Amino acid sequence: KPKKGACMKSGKTCNKKLSEKSRYNVPPSAEFVARVSGIATMGKLPYQETANGLDAAFIGVPIDTGTSNRPGARFGPRQIRAESAMLRAYNSGTRAAPYESLMVADIGDVNVNVYDLKDTCKRIREAFRSVLATGCIPLTMGGDHTIAYPILQAVADKHGPVGLVHVDAHADTSDVVLGEKIGHGTPFRRCVEEGLLDCKRVVQIGLRGTGYSPDAYEWSRAQGFRVVQVEECWFKSLAPLMAEVRTQMGSGPVYLSFDIDALDPAFAPGTGTPEIAGLTPIQGLEIIRGCRGLNLVGCDLVEVSPPYDTTGNTALTAANLLFEMMCVLPKMKYYD
Amino acid sequence: KPKKGACMKSGKTCNKKLSEKSRYNVPPSAEFVARVSGIATMGKLPYQETANGLDAAFIGVPIDTGTSNRPGARFGPRQIRAESAMLRAYNSGTRAAPYESLMVADIGDVNVNVYDLKDTCKRIREAFRSVLATGCIPLTMGGDHTIAYPILQAVADKHGPVGLVHVDAHADTSDVVLGEKIGHGTPFRRCVEEGLLDCKRVVQIGLRGTGYSPDAYEWSRAQGFRVVQVEECWFKSLAPLMAEVRTQMGSGPVYLSFDIDALDPAFAPGTGTPEIAGLTPIQGLEIIRGCRGLNLVGCDLVEVSPPYDTTGNTALTAANLLFEMMCVLPKMKYYD
Amino acid sequence: KPKKGACMKSGKTCNKKLSEKSRYNVPPSAEFVARVSGIATMGKLPYQETANGLDAAFIGVPIDTGTSNRPGARFGPRQIRAESAMLRAYNSGTRAAPYESLMVADIGDVNVNVYDLKDTCKRIREAFRSVLATGCIPLTMGGDHTIAYPILQAVADKHGPVGLVHVDAHADTSDVVLGEKIGHGTPFRRCVEEGLLDCKRVVQIGLRGTGYSPDAYEWSRAQGFRVVQVEECWFKSLAPLMAEVRTQMGSGPVYLSFDIDALDPAFAPGTGTPEIAGLTPIQGLEIIRGCRGLNLVGCDLVEVSPPYDTTGNTALTAANLLFEMMCVLPKMKYYD
Amino acid sequence: KPKKGACMKSGKTCNKKLSEKSRYNVPPSAEFVARVSGIATMGKLPYQETANGLDAAFIGVPIDTGTSNRPGARFGPRQIRAESAMLRAYNSGTRAAPYESLMVADIGDVNVNVYDLKDTCKRIREAFRSVLATGCIPLTMGGDHTIAYPILQAVADKHGPVGLVHVDAHADTSDVVLGEKIGHGTPFRRCVEEGLLDCKRVVQIGLRGTGYSPDAYEWSRAQGFRVVQVEECWFKSLAPLMAEVRTQMGSGPVYLSFDIDALDPAFAPGTGTPEIAGLTPIQGLEIIRGCRGLNLVGCDLVEVSPPYDTTGNTALTAANLLFEMMCVLPKMKYYD
Amino acid sequence: KPKKGACMKSGKTCNKKLSEKSRYNVPPSAEFVARVSGIATMGKLPYQETANGLDAAFIGVPIDTGTSNRPGARFGPRQIRAESAMLRAYNSGTRAAPYESLMVADIGDVNVNVYDLKDTCKRIREAFRSVLATGCIPLTMGGDHTIAYPILQAVADKHGPVGLVHVDAHADTSDVVLGEKIGHGTPFRRCVEEGLLDCKRVVQIGLRGTGYSPDAYEWSRAQGFRVVQVEECWFKSLAPLMAEVRTQMGSGPVYLSFDIDALDPAFAPGTGTPEIAGLTPIQGLEIIRGCRGLNLVGCDLVEVSPPYDTTGNTALTAANLLFEMMCVLPKMKYYD
Amino acid sequence: KPKKGACMKSGKTCNKKLSEKSRYNVPPSAEFVARVSGIATMGKLPYQETANGLDAAFIGVPIDTGTSNRPGARFGPRQIRAESAMLRAYNSGTRAAPYESLMVADIGDVNVNVYDLKDTCKRIREAFRSVLATGCIPLTMGGDHTIAYPILQAVADKHGPVGLVHVDAHADTSDVVLGEKIGHGTPFRRCVEEGLLDCKRVVQIGLRGTGYSPDAYEWSRAQGFRVVQVEECWFKSLAPLMAEVRTQMGSGPVYLSFDIDALDPAFAPGTGTPEIAGLTPIQGLEIIRGCRGLNLVGCDLVEVSPPYDTTGNTALTAANLLFEMMCVLPKMKYYD
Repeated sequence: KPKKGACMKSGKTCNKKLSEKSRYNVPPSAEFVARVSGIATMGKLPYQETANGLDAAFIGVPIDTGTSNRPGARFGPRQIRAESAMLRAYNSGTRAAPYESLMVADIGDVNVNVYDLKDTCKRIREAFRSVLATGCIPLTMGGDHTIAYPILQAVADKHGPVGLVHVDAHADTSDVVLGEKIGHGTPFRRCVEEGLLDCKRVVQIGLRGTGYSPDAYEWSRAQGFRVVQVEECWFKSLAPLMAEVRTQMGSGPVYLSFDIDALDPAFAPGTGTPEIAGLTPIQGLEIIRGCRGLNLVGCDLVEVSPPYDTTGNTALTAANLLFEMMCVLPKMKYYD
Repeated sequence: KPKKGACMKSGKTCNKKLSEKSRYNVPPSAEFVARVSGIATMGKLPYQETANGLDAAFIGVPIDTGTSNRPGARFGPRQIRAESAMLRAYNSGTRAAPYESLMVADIGDVNVNVYDLKDTCKRIREAFRSVLATGCIPLTMGGDHTIAYPILQAVADKHGPVGLVHVDAHADTSDVVLGEKIGHGTPFRRCVEEGLLDCKRVVQIGLRGTGYSPDAYEWSRAQGFRVVQVEECWFKSLAPLMAEVRTQMGSGPVYLSFDIDALDPAFAPGTGTPEIAGLTPIQGLEIIRGCRGLNLVGCDLVEVSPPYDTTGNTALTAANLLFEMMCVLPKMKYYD
Repeated sequence: KPKKGACMKSGKTCNKKLSEKSRYNVPPSAEFVARVSGIATMGKLPYQETANGLDAAFIGVPIDTGTSNRPGARFGPRQIRAESAMLRAYNSGTRAAPYESLMVADIGDVNVNVYDLKDTCKRIREAFRSVLATGCIPLTMGGDHTIAYPILQAVADKHGPVGLVHVDAHADTSDVVLGEKIGHGTPFRRCVEEGLLDCKRVVQIGLRGTGYSPDAYEWSRAQGFRVVQVEECWFKSLAPLMAEVRTQMGSGPVYLSFDIDALDPAFAPGTGTPEIAGLTPIQGLEIIRGCRGLNLVGCDLVEVSPPYDTTGNTALTAANLLFEMMCVLPKMKYYD
Repeated sequence: KPKKGACMKSGKTCNKKLSEKSRYNVPPSAEFVARVSGIATMGKLPYQETANGLDAAFIGVPIDTGTSNRPGARFGPRQIRAESAMLRAYNSGTRAAPYESLMVADIGDVNVNVYDLKDTCKRIREAFRSVLATGCIPLTMGGDHTIAYPILQAVADKHGPVGLVHVDAHADTSDVVLGEKIGHGTPFRRCVEEGLLDCKRVVQIGLRGTGYSPDAYEWSRAQGFRVVQVEECWFKSLAPLMAEVRTQMGSGPVYLSFDIDALDPAFAPGTGTPEIAGLTPIQGLEIIRGCRGLNLVGCDLVEVSPPYDTTGNTALTAANLLFEMMCVLPKMKYYD
Repeated sequence: KPKKGACMKSGKTCNKKLSEKSRYNVPPSAEFVARVSGIATMGKLPYQETANGLDAAFIGVPIDTGTSNRPGARFGPRQIRAESAMLRAYNSGTRAAPYESLMVADIGDVNVNVYDLKDTCKRIREAFRSVLATGCIPLTMGGDHTIAYPILQAVADKHGPVGLVHVDAHADTSDVVLGEKIGHGTPFRRCVEEGLLDCKRVVQIGLRGTGYSPDAYEWSRAQGFRVVQVEECWFKSLAPLMAEVRTQMGSGPVYLSFDIDALDPAFAPGTGTPEIAGLTPIQGLEIIRGCRGLNLVGCDLVEVSPPYDTTGNTALTAANLLFEMMCVLPKMKYYD
Repeated sequence: KPKKGACMKSGKTCNKKLSEKSRYNVPPSAEFVARVSGIATMGKLPYQETANGLDAAFIGVPIDTGTSNRPGARFGPRQIRAESAMLRAYNSGTRAAPYESLMVADIGDVNVNVYDLKDTCKRIREAFRSVLATGCIPLTMGGDHTIAYPILQAVADKHGPVGLVHVDAHADTSDVVLGEKIGHGTPFRRCVEEGLLDCKRVVQIGLRGTGYSPDAYEWSRAQGFRVVQVEECWFKSLAPLMAEVRTQMGSGPVYLSFDIDALDPAFAPGTGTPEIAGLTPIQGLEIIRGCRGLNLVGCDLVEVSPPYDTTGNTALTAANLLFEMMCVLPKMKYYD
């Protein structure tokens, strides 16, 4: 029996069953190491400083200086790591076996500049270029949605314009807010302007809330995005929608950006700009599981704001959604 | 760029796009004034002391002395105003343009007597008579549900017996509770006794919870009300129900009274007498949007109890529902 | 009018309408005694020290030392009692009349040993043997799910192997966790090993979450259990499922064990090992109401953890579910 | 070892050491019954419906309809009972042995009328007359401070005008507020008007906060009260003050009324009208312990508002202060 | 009796006693208007858009983008206004009568740029120049401490280098943090560099916490500041210190900057960078009251972070401290 | 400028100023790495799996199964690590320079058995024997106070009977509770029985609360312990007491055990068995700083319960107290 420590470097002695058949990092199992025990890394995976040698990496971007309303998303990565202690090694719903498929680790956080959002964007872009240079797929824990812009700069640098599955309450395509081009309401406008997106392969799911103009999603449609307002999602499974999305995305590189506020505030209260009547976590799972087979080159889960997450369950939801994202990455092995 | 102040008196300099085409009050847009900035009025609308010159008015009735269980609804108006900073000028779902259609303002709160519920009822009745005398439609922020009684006294004074769309977990038709005729469990009994309602044009939606007698809604049915227990609403869209309700209501004057506890406590935890297995906000929107075309003469949203609303999201939900009510008032312009 | 006291011994003077026609314990009605008034017992029922003379009894088992993650379930019984002040005498959905059908009381808590889980299990087993010896049906307020094991030991002692309707996010059929046979992840494994369950008459509903092995429910299926993963429940009424369950259960004795984490964390945040994308309270009601007609010999509602129940609504949900369980016990009278 | 139940009727089997030498009610000791186990009564004392046979009784008055700001005090008695599970049998500071000295029980709550404050006052007065008629000393758990007025009506009925040790942030001597004579800002004005107080034997300790007039305590002084503003208490022990108070009170009957808001909000956040820079719990203990030797005929602890007591520690403080009050009642035995 | 509205424009009908003898703005008294009633302005004072005609003005600066740790201070002004409903017209401790002495109003918030801290500083500086140009003394509700820099730019523009009473846990004199010159750890360094302070007339009170270098306050002392580490304040009244401070300040213009984190986190939990073992509110009052007689030209109260203020009492403390600041402004009338 | 990562392995690139003059581990400074950024280790120190090469180590023991009342202390280490992000490199009060004096790291948590307290004690004892075998001094983050027993077994194994500075609300010297010898109320009784303590060199500071017998501290005194009840501490500096304690302790090995409930619940609400009228953090600092010069061989800080620490400030206090303990270890360098 292991006596001490979180087995941060490897789960070998702490998850024998799995470690014996896997050549990858294996987090310690709660069957052998108490959930409460150990330094909090994402999914209890080992921490390493760089992405070298990894197929995929969890990475945090702890900012909220791009938020227009309630702050707190800077603590998203920390809280997601803490609540991720609930995660086990296999996906019971899809029978994916991520730790038999990929070398994954937690590579810590981008060292953001909390006093200057523009400089932070530069730091993010550079950090993600380094990660992507190793061939590793980033699974990002936000932070507010501003971060999607510099991440996509780095992603497009490597992969060219990408398809985008964007799950959100908001289109995030404003041009200028409070006189600024950079903020959590504008990233996808900037991405389009810089040619980072393959606009015919963009879908925005879950959009809703009051708007600044009669048709809040006009600009999105004008770019060729598919816009799925939340009203189209009410009362139904999104599996059929995702079949269409897979067709839309084809075999090209795809980025998945999931704003936790896409979910109804009942399920994800811990966020900065909640909008009522949103998606359910069931639909969130359907969307992510529906990305199976796509050529995913990066994913993020953004806008978890712990000060408004009074029970930790928003962060827990985020941890599960990030785990599900990992479970649809290319080369995943399924027991189905 | 506006430098200072909440633009409480007018959004003219703070929402140029809209102000240029509207002759009505326009709240400052978050594109130009930070959400966090400014005195908290409903929807960031200007405050004025009376209803003079208004087509509709948001008005608060901050009481909870009529509540049977958890108090706190006295802070409902204050918290709804605070969270309403998230509201923008247009309804993305229906494309209603309220600030191109109506002159609206926040006219503050009734000065209630927190020590005497009966005197408070008198004060409410008189205050609403004044409001209604100007021709303004009141959009009321409660306060506990007791307030529907004196409000309907004032409404019926002006309009005669009205139809009622009553959305609630409870019928609120008790006769006497703890020896009292006045309280949040009795308002609609009193209204019927005083002839304020057109009983054939009353519908109660969402009723549930344990009851004082085997059939808790017997009295309602005996008056001719349509009773829609929550079980009839489970798993389905309420759009078809609302088509029937519109037929039931016809062209006569209708009052809409929405108790936030109609919603399931997951979506609206901040309330005093929650009952499980309730409506969803999606269904709440369907009900309100389904009132489009009715001759609405007043609306209320009651029973938001901030001390039990740990994230502010119940108040945010209430703010959105009140905005949606405004968007179905007569003379509304839609971009659809 | 009653002037003082919670009418703990009897509701006779506090609920005249019902007391006149019932020969059973009747809790004071909120029409006559303020909800806030009185010692907190379950449903405001009288407290008595033993189960003598009772048809059914609410009993608490205040432990959380079997929990693997967040503790707090030790305060479950206390909080459920506090929130149960909202309960009234009749079931509005099913028109069950429990207080015209059965003699029920609150018999307090098992005196657990908070320092030793194995000794606690012995204490629980003995306490339930005493309760069952009187012919009383226990309606148990947990406490973590470990308690199902000693309770089922006592139940099977009296009734032989029983059918089991197990509603949960987790199968709770692990063999050994952290080197231990006893804990909240293992009770049903122990029950099977000891022959306490009639394995063909076991159903597990709502299972989900990440797992320790590719098929987390393999062992359950191998025993002959029916396993209903949550994916089978999404977007639909569970009434059809329950028709099948009633057939499966037949006329033999059945035990109902309901882990509050079967519900989605939005509806029941106050629990120790939440898993996203769970059942709704509507489905929870359908499951319990679907047990009508079964030969129920005991029920529990476990894993309510008040420190994570920031609004009290998880405990309120639990109180309602326990009331619904009482309403499907054998000999129940319905006004339908 | 006791196996089941809270030993509500007697601690005899649950606190052998003490029960053997005491002829009074003895609550179960946490050495033998887990703190978490059992129906929540004050101090885990037995519950009985009337005051018959008691030397002292804990009694709740669950109202907040007399409050001017934040409500919630209606849940004070329930929460104080819950947190009182921490209390043990002896006072370590003073070595008082209450359960070797007096027959004490919890006699539940006054059945208040939550819809009418004036009727509630009548109910309180009558209930306390019954309690006092038995010769029992009431130790009251509020509820807002309005209750002091009807309680003192009953007390003066029996004892004539009494001395008063009034610990509070506010003088509570307003004449009319919002047009009303009855509320939590006026009880002691009413008491003086009705001759219930021996004005030369009244002291008010801890007064502070902003005021309605330049000298907020002028009226108090004009009646002959001793007024101790909080500034006189800062940085020092109140033991010397209490020596003077004992001289002031002499041997006549004295009532002790302790508003939890006398304490600084850091120590007692769970209250409705907090004022900064208040007394410490150390000073609170000094005041109560300083009442040793007085002819106390009744005590109350009011204004605990659980919705604002996020940790339960305000209620815990109240439970301790009530225990300390019991420990200075006449006939107390001390091991010193 | 006033029936409706918060009497935002004037308290004349709502506080007759005071209005009759005052020629200034008088907020409605809670004797006549319920505390819960009305739009939330600071102290229930009237709102006006500019500082014209005012002797002093409450003004909000809702930012937290300069904070290094927990955000949330952007909601400080909103929450302080909400909790300020507890304030009455007179200072009971000092008998100051602010509404008989000065024309005061709430002039709303600076319209900050939440996405760019440097631009926000410009906006603040300009807004305060406008305010100061009218001759009005600003009483500022922060916002994080960054704001002291642009405010002091505007103040020194008008008054020349000023004395500074700086109450804080931190010296806020760092040079560069995360590569930035502007942030909440650097304002007073910038002020010295720009010659805004009369360094011999600067005192910093309450400094503590771990530091970046062996002597964290070396730079302060090198400028000639008086540094009062918190250890010098423990266990004692600060009245003697303030006598010395008054001598130090002399008759020149003085600015008072009070960071709520100067107080111990028990008293002010709602702040972003708490440090243990701090000042008490009693000492806070002594400091502010000790400024009586100084030539105060501006005051601020910063760093209230509502998301961490679970009871609202930090904001309440801030509201009281701001009221006390108003009560020591030049020309104040005292009834002593 | 460092761009990515928490600099977990070393602060060399992230705290140049200090790293240049130190040959020890240096955590990244918040001047160069944002506080929010990085995996949460204690004080942002590097994590290593064993104590090899360390002078001192922070180590967590995440249990609460020994607690008698509110659980949650199992999350103490995780939350203390999270809040410790506020710590900087130097002690401003004492000018201690720990990172110029000692090699320190965070070595993670003991892998506890959450289902069996007795087995957990064995695991703790063995883990600490390993740590102590390297010559490293453990600075332990609890966990409930039960852990002091197995830690002292390991400590006495190495050092023989030790002196003890025990800071606590409770003596923790019960013999048997609920029939058990092991729990958080008994550790020091067990230590005495096993000869682990040098009883003449034991002091217990801060004792208070109600007791199971007239003199709750009789047994302590009988062993020769010095007992300092809280009443002796009220209103005064504890510096003189600590001078006496240093004399009492002499030059022999001393263990410091600090239960956070020694502090008043206002300052440390997040704990399981709070007692009112406790020590202040100022006194806590005086006690720890007063240990300077003692031959400290180990320290712990126990009983932080995050579910009851609604603001995180109890954990922050604990982090600071642990930092202060490190600053009084033998060989510490001071800039004084």
